[in-house]
Amino acid sequence: MIADRIWTSLTALRKRQPLIHNITNLVATNNSANALLALGASPAMVHSSDEVEDFVALSQALVINIGTLYSEQIAASKLAAIRAKAAGVPWALDPVGAGATPYRKAAALALTRLGPSVIRGNGSEILALARQERVGQGRGVDSLHGSEAALDAARGLAGESGAVIAVTGAVDYVTDGSRVLEIHNGHPLMTRVTGLGCSATAVIGAFLAVEIDPLAATVAGLAVFGVAGEIAAEQARGPGSLQVALLDALHTMTQDDLTQRLKLEEAKDHRTKPLNFPPRPEKS
Amino acid sequence: MIADRIWTSLTALRKRQPLIHNITNLVATNNSANALLALGASPAMVHSSDEVEDFVALSQALVINIGTLYSEQIAASKLAAIRAKAAGVPWALDPVGAGATPYRKAAALALTRLGPSVIRGNGSEILALARQERVGQGRGVDSLHGSEAALDAARGLAGESGAVIAVTGAVDYVTDGSRVLEIHNGHPLMTRVTGLGCSATAVIGAFLAVEIDPLAATVAGLAVFGVAGEIAAEQARGPGSLQVALLDALHTMTQDDLTQRLKLEEAKDHRTKPLNFPPRPEKS
Amino acid sequence: MIADRIWTSLTALRKRQPLIHNITNLVATNNSANALLALGASPAMVHSSDEVEDFVALSQALVINIGTLYSEQIAASKLAAIRAKAAGVPWALDPVGAGATPYRKAAALALTRLGPSVIRGNGSEILALARQERVGQGRGVDSLHGSEAALDAARGLAGESGAVIAVTGAVDYVTDGSRVLEIHNGHPLMTRVTGLGCSATAVIGAFLAVEIDPLAATVAGLAVFGVAGEIAAEQARGPGSLQVALLDALHTMTQDDLTQRLKLEEAKDHRTKPLNFPPRPEKS
Repeated sequence: MIADRIWTSLTALRKRQPLIHNITNLVATNNSANALLALGASPAMVHSSDEVEDFVALSQALVINIGTLYSEQIAASKLAAIRAKAAGVPWALDPVGAGATPYRKAAALALTRLGPSVIRGNGSEILALARQERVGQGRGVDSLHGSEAALDAARGLAGESGAVIAVTGAVDYVTDGSRVLEIHNGHPLMTRVTGLGCSATAVIGAFLAVEIDPLAATVAGLAVFGVAGEIAAEQARGPGSLQVALLDALHTMTQDDLTQRLKLEEAKDHRTKPLNFPPRPEKS
Repeated sequence: MIADRIWTSLTALRKRQPLIHNITNLVATNNSANALLALGASPAMVHSSDEVEDFVALSQALVINIGTLYSEQIAASKLAAIRAKAAGVPWALDPVGAGATPYRKAAALALTRLGPSVIRGNGSEILALARQERVGQGRGVDSLHGSEAALDAARGLAGESGAVIAVTGAVDYVTDGSRVLEIHNGHPLMTRVTGLGCSATAVIGAFLAVEIDPLAATVAGLAVFGVAGEIAAEQARGPGSLQVALLDALHTMTQDDLTQRLKLEEAKDHRTKPLNFPPRPEKS
Repeated sequence: MIADRIWTSLTALRKRQPLIHNITNLVATNNSANALLALGASPAMVHSSDEVEDFVALSQALVINIGTLYSEQIAASKLAAIRAKAAGVPWALDPVGAGATPYRKAAALALTRLGPSVIRGNGSEILALARQERVGQGRGVDSLHGSEAALDAARGLAGESGAVIAVTGAVDYVTDGSRVLEIHNGHPLMTRVTGLGCSATAVIGAFLAVEIDPLAATVAGLAVFGVAGEIAAEQARGPGSLQVALLDALHTMTQDDLTQRLKLEEAKDHRTKPLNFPPRPEKS
């Protein structure tokens, strides 16, 4: 049933080709754009504070990623987020390396306060945002923590920020503070390709454009990305060919691929109320 | 006969390895450099206003692309274009998303006035530059218009700017205001890979370094790129492997590949004078 | 014996996954990060002068590359290098296109004076740094000179700067001013892929994190990268697939691959003292 809803969203995405505005990092910008194109969306990478407000107003969703942040980009990201909020454009935040430096943590917290629909990070990033880890104790942009170690922090952060929180890792957790879902797709070789977490956030952004419930959009994005990664890993001879095959798999994914591979469940220990997606209104 | 001329240019390019100065966007910079290397040119991506004037004077052609523009890059692009013009270095302009925001349109128009040899865009971009489309009515950086819808605008823009105009899409049109050529190569899957339009402009730039007639250089660039895309699409399993195979095909293209696949013709309805490339003097 | 030492370092690298801080160019940032991940390291691309000092102090090595330099990046690179030196973090410099413009040469020389452990460049770049070539006489970022033409300059530069100097090309030379080694691995098709020199420097940086002797680290980095390039070239159909296969080969390289393919020797004509790596203490 959830697989059907994800498939419906993917079909809508391929048909409508929503414009996704990305303010992202120098490492992941090419791969994120390619992931969005392979998925069926229409990505644009627009960074200047001179135009982000105009551009986001034309877009169906916004993705902000602080991977290679610098002062002008923080300003542009804030302007875009504020305008997105005002214009009703949903947006996703990727707080890359949030705990690594004070500068990075401050930027991530400031953006969190501007009302993202979704925040996706690894365990260390979500712990940092939830102020449960000291700055400078991480491993740069890679996680020192498994995703499950950040689940309680994620639920707290969801409650505090109003955003859906995704903690990704060997298992991906998605929560809005009450509902918690686990996704067991993906493949360990994906951690040996740069920017795939960033691309996953971009893909979540694309689903925000066609799925009204941010929790369902986040689950859809991570499920589709994880299934594509699994298909790619079966064909790959290493991380180079994995990256290529992942883009192919996003483009060619069928309903059977999704339905047969999806490993999604409610997190039993953390559930406070039964899983219940609101009915899916057609997003205009 | 045109195929022979294109092949002669490609052979010259592979032999001379001209230095192509690129001021391009963050998404396409890697792919453009790789396309130029695969083709046989020697690309350099040099952006700082502190050195672009020195650098362009060493180069055999310049390519300016406004995809991820910001104020410093606009300044550097203008400085490079002015010096290129003064030094007799031909240059190509890619007005990415020209119609999306006022900032982007103003930058594209300002650069157009600095005398590019060639402007390549999709239908919406050429319509915006020809002031036939309101700002903010496009779809970000993707085109809402087929290339044929912009052909009249292209001819007018060619007359006004003195540049050869290429409008690319399912069919590519190239015009200097009087002559009009159509190229029917390429493959729809190419639209699912980011930055291929940008790479096509870079490839045109490389041909400007070895072919004295900008119309012939533009046709050569688009023909070679389109043929490479076709070869790649036959081997690809999706957009990821297409991008890889396209670089391979640019590198390995033979005269037979080009001659047998080239689909080039004069645009019958729009021709005002018979096609006539000036004789090909050897460019030193 | 040297092959054993290189393999020991590679094994240590895969186990410890050292954090490698990169301040690199827009073209190579994705490929460098992927090369480091494929190798087994944990790369981070962190550029802002607001955080590089904090970040480098968390890192096990630093790599600075001036490929697409601009004023803010030069400042950030200097700050990072100064802090790295103070904190005992080894760092590698890639002086891309050092001879092309006065701006680029000044930046490369200023960074050289900040005490890199290793400098890797092509022949023209090392000649420029050793002040044996006039600015503006190169071919942009590609070399006009074979690596052997820069060997004397490299030895002088090593003596003057205190850094190990690597001059790469058809043959790679590595020298600390007295010892000189030659590596004959790699493949000509590697010159048709952008940023592979930059990625080689990044890989050297990773070995600096696990190998106490900068000469041995540099040899290890170039040997592993060259062997991976050879393996990749055997599988590739052109430069696109070479880049993909190279990342795969870095990830899957076995001790047999390395031992059987390694072509490393002392440079007979230039040796002033017998090759002697200091004993390999375990780096903490």
